[in-house]
Amino acid sequence: MKVYGDLQSGNCLKVKLLLSLLNIEHEWIHVNILDGETKTNEFLSKNPNGKIPAVELDDGRCLCESNAILGYFAENTNFLPADRYERAKVYEWLFFEQYSHEPFIAVARFIQKYLGMPKEREDEYHSLQTGGNKALQLMENQLTHSDCLVGNELTIADISLYAYTHVAGEGGFDLNGYPAIQNWCQRIKSTSGYVGMK
Amino acid sequence: MKVYGDLQSGNCLKVKLLLSLLNIEHEWIHVNILDGETKTNEFLSKNPNGKIPAVELDDGRCLCESNAILGYFAENTNFLPADRYERAKVYEWLFFEQYSHEPFIAVARFIQKYLGMPKEREDEYHSLQTGGNKALQLMENQLTHSDCLVGNELTIADISLYAYTHVAGEGGFDLNGYPAIQNWCQRIKSTSGYVGMK
Repeated sequence: MKVYGDLQSGNCLKVKLLLSLLNIEHEWIHVNILDGETKTNEFLSKNPNGKIPAVELDDGRCLCESNAILGYFAENTNFLPADRYERAKVYEWLFFEQYSHEPFIAVARFIQKYLGMPKEREDEYHSLQTGGNKALQLMENQLTHSDCLVGNELTIADISLYAYTHVAGEGGFDLNGYPAIQNWCQRIKSTSGYVGMK
Repeated sequence: MKVYGDLQSGNCLKVKLLLSLLNIEHEWIHVNILDGETKTNEFLSKNPNGKIPAVELDDGRCLCESNAILGYFAENTNFLPADRYERAKVYEWLFFEQYSHEPFIAVARFIQKYLGMPKEREDEYHSLQTGGNKALQLMENQLTHSDCLVGNELTIADISLYAYTHVAGEGGFDLNGYPAIQNWCQRIKSTSGYVGMK
């Protein structure tokens, strides 16, 4: 199995982290977005949407969208609850991540860390802080009531949200205001099999 | 069971449409976003993120995020394939919908239809056309290869993507350029149990 990605991308780290926690063998193929490597015909044949991560299974079939990939590998493991309602709550957090968290926190981080905060994107960067802090506050509220986002055991909801949350500081977000999130990040980091951004 | 939503919202229509196709009884409670009805304490106790749709099950537990709600009700029905890879492909389209489709097509429609195209959002409106047409082209490419987005039978991937696609014209997108999408919309509309926006 091949996984195409960049470990500095939270969306890619999610997949690497789950595969590591589940001890699933794979070949990691580094893809450089800024060099246009997701826009080549070869890459577009794996993901027509031109985004990483993308997984190529041993039979050649491909799978994209980080959170759909998490769901695929988590099935029948402890990272996706057997209970129907709890499983839906996990997916609720996964969709929250893509709509209400990533577009603020990951994009602010991209502008600050990768683009070096160009003047023409400063207004956008500042406008992203409100939405990002709202998302962090919703996570903080949940994590003061339970050890993990759904119940007290790690699921792919935690793996998904962890990816951009633990580096939110690189997008200008101060995690010191979110003590429950900080404790949760520490718990994830101390899990056997943990891997972080390289 | 109660469902809180507004049938002019594609995210809400998805839920209404699946419940109707599955013949699941529910009470529909209309919520007016523009009047602030998603920001009351009572509503926030059901969805802390302050968005519709939200489902309140008979035991009082709530579920949010339209696509997570679809997944919950589609389990063990024909709308979510039993095959693990196909199920992951359905979720791939659901995440695509929230990240690469809705933020362009639904937002352009909101600016044009609900806000009446205010001058200060005209630039944003025009910039959304590129991303929206890219999403429609990816759907068109798939729908020239298969009757539905995953295989040849309707799944929640189709229900989810249909919601904002069939009214994309209200956001300035011309579906005449996408014949496979137009045929697919017609097939969905002719399905027994179909309901549209009121």
